Amino acid sequence: MARFIRRGARKAGLSPGTIVHVGEVKAERAKISLVDYDQSSFQEREASTIEKCFPFKDKPTVTWINIDGLHQVEIVEALGEHLDLHPLVMEDIVHTGQRPKMEDYENTLFIVLKMLRYDEVQDQIDEEQFSLILGTNWVISFQEKEGDVFDPLRDRIRNSKRRIRKMGADYLAYTLVDAIVDNYFILLEKLGDRVEALDEDLVVHPGPKALQEIHALKRELLFMRKSVWPLREVISGLQRVESALFEEHTLIYLRDVYDHTIQVIDTVETFRDMISGMLDIYLSSVSNRMNEVMKVLTIIATIFIPLTFVAGLYGMNFLHMPELKWRFGYFAVLGLMAAIAGTMVLYFRRKKWL
Amino acid sequence: MARFIRRGARKAGLSPGTIVHVGEVKAERAKISLVDYDQSSFQEREASTIEKCFPFKDKPTVTWINIDGLHQVEIVEALGEHLDLHPLVMEDIVHTGQRPKMEDYENTLFIVLKMLRYDEVQDQIDEEQFSLILGTNWVISFQEKEGDVFDPLRDRIRNSKRRIRKMGADYLAYTLVDAIVDNYFILLEKLGDRVEALDEDLVVHPGPKALQEIHALKRELLFMRKSVWPLREVISGLQRVESALFEEHTLIYLRDVYDHTIQVIDTVETFRDMISGMLDIYLSSVSNRMNEVMKVLTIIATIFIPLTFVAGLYGMNFLHMPELKWRFGYFAVLGLMAAIAGTMVLYFRRKKWL
Amino acid sequence: MARFIRRGARKAGLSPGTIVHVGEVKAERAKISLVDYDQSSFQEREASTIEKCFPFKDKPTVTWINIDGLHQVEIVEALGEHLDLHPLVMEDIVHTGQRPKMEDYENTLFIVLKMLRYDEVQDQIDEEQFSLILGTNWVISFQEKEGDVFDPLRDRIRNSKRRIRKMGADYLAYTLVDAIVDNYFILLEKLGDRVEALDEDLVVHPGPKALQEIHALKRELLFMRKSVWPLREVISGLQRVESALFEEHTLIYLRDVYDHTIQVIDTVETFRDMISGMLDIYLSSVSNRMNEVMKVLTIIATIFIPLTFVAGLYGMNFLHMPELKWRFGYFAVLGLMAAIAGTMVLYFRRKKWL
Amino acid sequence: MARFIRRGARKAGLSPGTIVHVGEVKAERAKISLVDYDQSSFQEREASTIEKCFPFKDKPTVTWINIDGLHQVEIVEALGEHLDLHPLVMEDIVHTGQRPKMEDYENTLFIVLKMLRYDEVQDQIDEEQFSLILGTNWVISFQEKEGDVFDPLRDRIRNSKRRIRKMGADYLAYTLVDAIVDNYFILLEKLGDRVEALDEDLVVHPGPKALQEIHALKRELLFMRKSVWPLREVISGLQRVESALFEEHTLIYLRDVYDHTIQVIDTVETFRDMISGMLDIYLSSVSNRMNEVMKVLTIIATIFIPLTFVAGLYGMNFLHMPELKWRFGYFAVLGLMAAIAGTMVLYFRRKKWL
Amino acid sequence: MARFIRRGARKAGLSPGTIVHVGEVKAERAKISLVDYDQSSFQEREASTIEKCFPFKDKPTVTWINIDGLHQVEIVEALGEHLDLHPLVMEDIVHTGQRPKMEDYENTLFIVLKMLRYDEVQDQIDEEQFSLILGTNWVISFQEKEGDVFDPLRDRIRNSKRRIRKMGADYLAYTLVDAIVDNYFILLEKLGDRVEALDEDLVVHPGPKALQEIHALKRELLFMRKSVWPLREVISGLQRVESALFEEHTLIYLRDVYDHTIQVIDTVETFRDMISGMLDIYLSSVSNRMNEVMKVLTIIATIFIPLTFVAGLYGMNFLHMPELKWRFGYFAVLGLMAAIAGTMVLYFRRKKWL
Repeated sequence: MARFIRRGARKAGLSPGTIVHVGEVKAERAKISLVDYDQSSFQEREASTIEKCFPFKDKPTVTWINIDGLHQVEIVEALGEHLDLHPLVMEDIVHTGQRPKMEDYENTLFIVLKMLRYDEVQDQIDEEQFSLILGTNWVISFQEKEGDVFDPLRDRIRNSKRRIRKMGADYLAYTLVDAIVDNYFILLEKLGDRVEALDEDLVVHPGPKALQEIHALKRELLFMRKSVWPLREVISGLQRVESALFEEHTLIYLRDVYDHTIQVIDTVETFRDMISGMLDIYLSSVSNRMNEVMKVLTIIATIFIPLTFVAGLYGMNFLHMPELKWRFGYFAVLGLMAAIAGTMVLYFRRKKWL
Repeated sequence: MARFIRRGARKAGLSPGTIVHVGEVKAERAKISLVDYDQSSFQEREASTIEKCFPFKDKPTVTWINIDGLHQVEIVEALGEHLDLHPLVMEDIVHTGQRPKMEDYENTLFIVLKMLRYDEVQDQIDEEQFSLILGTNWVISFQEKEGDVFDPLRDRIRNSKRRIRKMGADYLAYTLVDAIVDNYFILLEKLGDRVEALDEDLVVHPGPKALQEIHALKRELLFMRKSVWPLREVISGLQRVESALFEEHTLIYLRDVYDHTIQVIDTVETFRDMISGMLDIYLSSVSNRMNEVMKVLTIIATIFIPLTFVAGLYGMNFLHMPELKWRFGYFAVLGLMAAIAGTMVLYFRRKKWL
Repeated sequence: MARFIRRGARKAGLSPGTIVHVGEVKAERAKISLVDYDQSSFQEREASTIEKCFPFKDKPTVTWINIDGLHQVEIVEALGEHLDLHPLVMEDIVHTGQRPKMEDYENTLFIVLKMLRYDEVQDQIDEEQFSLILGTNWVISFQEKEGDVFDPLRDRIRNSKRRIRKMGADYLAYTLVDAIVDNYFILLEKLGDRVEALDEDLVVHPGPKALQEIHALKRELLFMRKSVWPLREVISGLQRVESALFEEHTLIYLRDVYDHTIQVIDTVETFRDMISGMLDIYLSSVSNRMNEVMKVLTIIATIFIPLTFVAGLYGMNFLHMPELKWRFGYFAVLGLMAAIAGTMVLYFRRKKWL
Repeated sequence: MARFIRRGARKAGLSPGTIVHVGEVKAERAKISLVDYDQSSFQEREASTIEKCFPFKDKPTVTWINIDGLHQVEIVEALGEHLDLHPLVMEDIVHTGQRPKMEDYENTLFIVLKMLRYDEVQDQIDEEQFSLILGTNWVISFQEKEGDVFDPLRDRIRNSKRRIRKMGADYLAYTLVDAIVDNYFILLEKLGDRVEALDEDLVVHPGPKALQEIHALKRELLFMRKSVWPLREVISGLQRVESALFEEHTLIYLRDVYDHTIQVIDTVETFRDMISGMLDIYLSSVSNRMNEVMKVLTIIATIFIPLTFVAGLYGMNFLHMPELKWRFGYFAVLGLMAAIAGTMVLYFRRKKWL
Repeated sequence: MARFIRRGARKAGLSPGTIVHVGEVKAERAKISLVDYDQSSFQEREASTIEKCFPFKDKPTVTWINIDGLHQVEIVEALGEHLDLHPLVMEDIVHTGQRPKMEDYENTLFIVLKMLRYDEVQDQIDEEQFSLILGTNWVISFQEKEGDVFDPLRDRIRNSKRRIRKMGADYLAYTLVDAIVDNYFILLEKLGDRVEALDEDLVVHPGPKALQEIHALKRELLFMRKSVWPLREVISGLQRVESALFEEHTLIYLRDVYDHTIQVIDTVETFRDMISGMLDIYLSSVSNRMNEVMKVLTIIATIFIPLTFVAGLYGMNFLHMPELKWRFGYFAVLGLMAAIAGTMVLYFRRKKWL
């Protein structure tokens, strides 16, 4: 269950706040990209070291530093020193087994989320930790590997006419969270398609393959749920945060993401309900079909067993068996057999067994 | 599961607040109808463009603008500009995958509900998004297609003696919500009829058809639940709203719709409980009947098997088989067989297997 | 499911507050009975019209007007006009599909409850709507048909020495509610007897009849639950009501009814738990018994099948079958058969199948 | 289900506060015992009438009056008059079907609990109502029959050096409640032993006896739960009581009983979880074993059926059957049979059915 | 279920606050170890008696006294007298059946936790009670036996450069709790490995061994849950504690342990969900495989039964059986048999039974 618990033994015994990367190394080298903008200016570049980004952060423009790849802990350490981050924050950024959460450190906000991607090859959901630090006019975000979820967002920032260019860093942070939550809907659609396909399959040929799919879907939904449920608290926490980091008019947007989160949770739970209903239907169908087969076969066997007995009876080799010498003995026995079979069929019909 | 999740990939990646219609195009052309009234005057007309309705809105009379058809986003955009609506409100009106919700924007209230209709052809529930904006003396409502749910309401407004003509726009908004909730009871009756029919069917002939119906009813109830549960929060939210939009004496009416909503939820949950009980009963009945069949058949087979063996015994062709030459060997064997069969029947009877 | 949802289509489309009777006409003519008392005086009479009762209501004595039969809506309308009742209250009195509830209208309190009776003929619970309006020194109650639940209460009022004669209308209202809740215990005892009988039946002969009873009991408990759960809120609502209608010392009595309601709910839930346990036990018993039968029968068949094969072998008509001519061939084969049967029995014994 | 609902029809119809004993008469004559103590003095005696106890109550020493046997309602009535008890309190003391509860009457506290005893003969839990009235410096307790649960407590009071002698009546009341809750642990151990024995039994021989035990344990846990769940509220209610009856330093002790109550509830729920898991395991084991038996037997039958057919074939009496006259026909057929049987065994082996 | 309830009868009847050891004697002699440090100084020693530790406690440095082994109650008594502990605290330290809890005694905090260890031999979780008293600048901890969970912590203290040397006793207490919670993750990994192994096993060979493992895992998770659920309250209680024992900056660390606790609980619940899903899959697989076997076998039997009957028919010894004398009678019958078998196979194929 490496997917369900990712918290290595490495941690146990270490001092709290020790910055050790836990997780797969998904990217070879960390990539630092920087976007700096306000309503009139816009700059975008890739930085070779994190230190080169610090001057931008201190300007009044909105600065977004995104780091892809968490195994180079020295980047996080440098950042931590520069920003005076709490050691636990630094530990959580690189230790990718966190539960989604939101922590309020007076003049910064720390948010951990899960990015989910549908792995088409393995037909299962991939999880990646996304964390974000929000300051007065800057956002620093961390991903495990490069991805394209934020590409449309970058396009919007590049376009000077979009709303985002007029808004502050809090709106940028909201947009990042919104992009991640919106992505969940894509996953839900994939899962929804599988649920629908399964529902049809169940009617046509309820076999072990359908069972495996029920099992797999259950697991995927359990996996997704683990990332989505805590999100609810995270976002409702953001709405109630007391620091001045979130401006009044951004809160309306947070309410919108909150609604989407509830919708994702609702849909996951509805899917779970449907699948658990399908398991019942599956089991009933299988046993129904089986019963039908067995019943008909057993009835056939049952009809022939007394007939075979009668045949066996007159196959006995006793010297004195009067019937054997009767002129129409054979035909009488054939008639008897037909009568027995007919009676039984009638009886089974009347009992509605046939 | 297109019915259970209606949120297209089109949205993901777009900027929040982008006004893109998501949903089926259920009406060819949007139809704008306007009703304007106070205690003494009454006017009703169909408007070719939304702009023609704006003058009415600014008069002190109560104005109700109803738009059937959401795919003409330009109407919503025109409205949004005129009323200075929040972009997220405009997005939610045309994006029909919303969860029922209520949002308070100081001098307007935005409500999203689901209208449910029973599709007699497909024997399933149809969902349609209904949204409503309430201002000081006007209500603007949006439906996906034309319907007749509000016809009795229009009749009441036309009649100058009815209570509604003396009340404000808040009462009109309440009446619209009430009409939708009242409609749910019609659906519950349809479903209740199916549950009752199923309950009787289960006793008479528990077969795969009953199972399919259990499955279908479960799904319909899950579908209905999805629209009805959030309604509870919506209406209790309306009761607690701080803006002056709802007058004191309208709150008593809201309490009434709230009670109806709870009743709908209760009934849905009771139906779900009953159906889950029926599945148990169904499974037990099927296995009971099957067991009874199998038991009787197996017993018949079991009685004949030793008899057939005895017959086979004396069908052997050994030269030296003394019994074969006995005078009454045949009849002795017949007697022996009768004795074996009798003993077995008695034994099965005593064990209560027969 | 007429029992589970009683809300006619007649309502849908009507204006809220329309006074239309919904429900069976359980009494031919409404019966109006009046009791008027204080510590020293007592009067009891049947009134031909509701208007004749109004003078009593305005005296300082406690007045209890009880109306049996709800289909004569004109009585409710007359009352409503006289008391200036809210239209929704009048609608709820005659529309018998209400959920138990309590509504506070400043100087009156409106309570809706369900009276439950055990219908011995159909072996199921009958529901009747009971509603009550409490004013400063009067109580008006509505039943669907005449009943005897309140007879002991009337006897107590007639007796000038009983506590009730010293107390106000709030105590009278409490006593009516208490009488209804106490009645629930009689139902619980009936259901408890059926649960107990079922529990014994299950051990003695677990058959389809037990299954039907499990199903029926489940439904009755579901039905009862529907009336009892909302009661909890109703009574705890009464305890918190802010109006001066309930005096301090009556609140202690309300606490007592509240405890009884919790006890009823607890017992209903305990019964539901027990019945769901019984279904498990039933299914296991049935399958246990079935398995035992099948096992023994199959073993018998299995022992004889190889023997029959051997007999068949020596029934073949080959010219050259040396064993057939052996002197003791027949007896050797009989011995072989005994040996085969013995070995199989031993084997089955050792495997603990027999 | 007399054990699960003990509320006679006698009550229904009676005026609230009527003092009628409901329950079994467990003791012939009520026994009144009195203990009166402070740090320096100690007195213990049995009283013939309750009136003899009243003078002690009014002294500044702590007085504990214990009444065993509730059917002599006159004792409760005399007490009620002397102490000016609320009629509902008196009713609840003698009506033994109460749910555990705590009621605060300003200068007295009324507590109802359930004493549970393990009836070794019937292997089930016995319930007895225990109620307690706490005044400023006295405690009056009521049991249905004499018992020995409080004997160690009496010993402690007799010993002038124990803490209890230095504390007030509130500590005495706490000690009584504590003794009852501590007793629950003894029951839990008994039930725990049965659960453990069952768990082992299930592995060794899963039969109908194990099923009966699962059923019985489920019922006992349900029964125990009914007494224990409300206890939680009772004790947390005591901790929050506003009257000055409980001194600050006794509250720490109440917190301790509260913890024990939670532990009892947790254990009951854990046992319920385990038993419901055992039912699953039981069902699977039974069906597993059954399947294994059936499979082997069916395979044996299946192997012999084609062989028997072949034997039957050459047992036919056609005049022209060339094989019959072959020199080695018989041996050829024997070889054919061996080949058929061998092929089938191999096939079953490969399919892992054998 | 000694593992699930460890509360001996010894307690019942004893006065609350009696210090009696309940639990296994896991260590022969209690071992008292002392660590005393501040930023500049460090001392570590083993003490022969508890009294020797007291002087350290009163110094301004942080003092940690750890006692391994609880059966020597005299140590706890000496400590209790010196520190003026509440008798209930002393009782709880030595009575190892406590539920995890936190108690606030103004100038000391008392915490009880469960240390869990994975017993590799028995493949099950071992529980040990850990309790801790936190004072202004000292921590006293109690374990049932010596262990190595705190060894890395001791190493950190020895190193003068670590954060812990700069922090107070509250941080030390936090670190102890954190070490225990971190340890739970190791257990979760072990259980996770077993869950994963089981999941694979289920697909390959679903047999009774898989069932036993499901049962065992369920029990271990139930056991773990019992220790972990209350932890949540304990730690959230610590965060809300009003005493000045916890400094502001330690609270951030407590929030971190709280998150870990939630994560542990989530994972335990997820595992439980998965296992309950696996049981369903297991049952379906077993019944699926069984059905498949039975179906094929039954079909084989069913095909041969009519053939055997035909063979039996012509094995009858009637004198007048015209077919027997036909030239090609035998071959005609063989053809008939082939036709019957072929028809049946075709029929079964068409019905998809084969």
